[in-house]
Amino acid sequence: MRIALGISYRGTAYKGWQSQPGGGTVQDHLEQALERFTGTPVRTVCAGRTDAGVHALNQVVHFDTDLRREPFSWVRGPNTFLPADIAVEWCQPVPGDFHARNAALGRRYAYLVREAPTRPSLDAGRVGWVFRPLDGAAMCEAAVHLLGEHDFSAFRSSECQAKSPIKIVREIRIRRVGAYWRFDFEASAFLHHMVRNIMGCLIAVGTGLHPPEWVAAVRDARDRRLAAPTFAPDGLYFLGPRYDERYGVPQRTPALDFLPGTPAENSP
Amino acid sequence: MRIALGISYRGTAYKGWQSQPGGGTVQDHLEQALERFTGTPVRTVCAGRTDAGVHALNQVVHFDTDLRREPFSWVRGPNTFLPADIAVEWCQPVPGDFHARNAALGRRYAYLVREAPTRPSLDAGRVGWVFRPLDGAAMCEAAVHLLGEHDFSAFRSSECQAKSPIKIVREIRIRRVGAYWRFDFEASAFLHHMVRNIMGCLIAVGTGLHPPEWVAAVRDARDRRLAAPTFAPDGLYFLGPRYDERYGVPQRTPALDFLPGTPAENSP
Repeated sequence: MRIALGISYRGTAYKGWQSQPGGGTVQDHLEQALERFTGTPVRTVCAGRTDAGVHALNQVVHFDTDLRREPFSWVRGPNTFLPADIAVEWCQPVPGDFHARNAALGRRYAYLVREAPTRPSLDAGRVGWVFRPLDGAAMCEAAVHLLGEHDFSAFRSSECQAKSPIKIVREIRIRRVGAYWRFDFEASAFLHHMVRNIMGCLIAVGTGLHPPEWVAAVRDARDRRLAAPTFAPDGLYFLGPRYDERYGVPQRTPALDFLPGTPAENSP
Repeated sequence: MRIALGISYRGTAYKGWQSQPGGGTVQDHLEQALERFTGTPVRTVCAGRTDAGVHALNQVVHFDTDLRREPFSWVRGPNTFLPADIAVEWCQPVPGDFHARNAALGRRYAYLVREAPTRPSLDAGRVGWVFRPLDGAAMCEAAVHLLGEHDFSAFRSSECQAKSPIKIVREIRIRRVGAYWRFDFEASAFLHHMVRNIMGCLIAVGTGLHPPEWVAAVRDARDRRLAAPTFAPDGLYFLGPRYDERYGVPQRTPALDFLPGTPAENSP
């Protein structure tokens, strides 16, 4: 049978999601925990591979198993073997045609930036930082140029393995939460470093380095060298994928409520 | 001249605030950074000594110095020498009669608890955790018994050095923020472990282990052995002291806005 799990993690200590020969990735830790729990090797497929230092609130993975366990055993068991900054949040048995990556209709990310004269401390590794005031209206105007279906080659890292640079960005929402700015992104899928490269450009506009129209010019040039530097991974959170409701996969975890600016309508 | 600084830190990696012979406390790191910045030893006095693992958003310290520097130099300079999870947030020259501890009219703490079947991950070390649902009404009823002037001996650790166990608790506010509960406390001063011991009792009431009136009985017995176990330090945040406005000491730092449930009226 096929099982889907929701995973949350603080990415600071890990070399990103994807398994590496030397270990040290979130996938390595998860698969080791599942192997210790089941007694057999388990290979997982995830909804969105996150970079080193990037956090996830509702990463979704699937795997196949012959073992019959109560769903909550798949949460409690692996959590015993996982480091304190990685947890299984939920388990959902899914139909055999569910695929964590291919079935995802969209993916959501959030980026948090502290706007203050001083660097972060309590939230170091958890937020980006700008010491110059950001112009919210200019950033919103710039973001409009990225909505819809575009060739995002200008925002793609040279290591990106995606077949096509054409993606559909459905939403970019920019809000202020006290001394923090929260940027929310939803797209069909994201290219490698795409959110961090877009963030670099939005911050360049927000600090007055470029006018909003510059983002449209960068987009049309499809040349990575014209875009701003890749922004730090620290403030980036993978909020999770969206699937067809028939799969019954949870859209959220409790961890989402710890993120400043999570809508109050999620409160019970 | 006398200088006041506002300090924020994530307490997870430190042996609490107060300087120790072996080092490794927040005060040790701050005083080393000030010494490297000024070239002379600097001794600081703080508003509230926090335990190992406890965080601070607006810890206030004062010290005396003959050096003349622009106020922001006292922020930027020490921050160069401090670890990433400790930062000076602001600097304010103060009158010679200002005293970070003795001038404090009150102190505020917040405690965050995750209520979920699964343990924290992204927020490990930053929140307490209960897997049973909490009864908010029962906890609020219990908290009323702790408001006002009382002998808080029942909530005092055996290592407490305070001269008197009598303190005035001015406010206890309990709110739900999504999957989290936020408890806010304000008092004239707090005994050693007082917030964590009160939290243990409120959680015992919230999970149905005791009725709300039990807290009044524990209070009146003035016997630590009758109270609940000391709650974990992980979710405890020192929000900062309050002073007479004439000192001009900032009441907040940007770091406060990262805490779930910080009132929206603080947003610019």
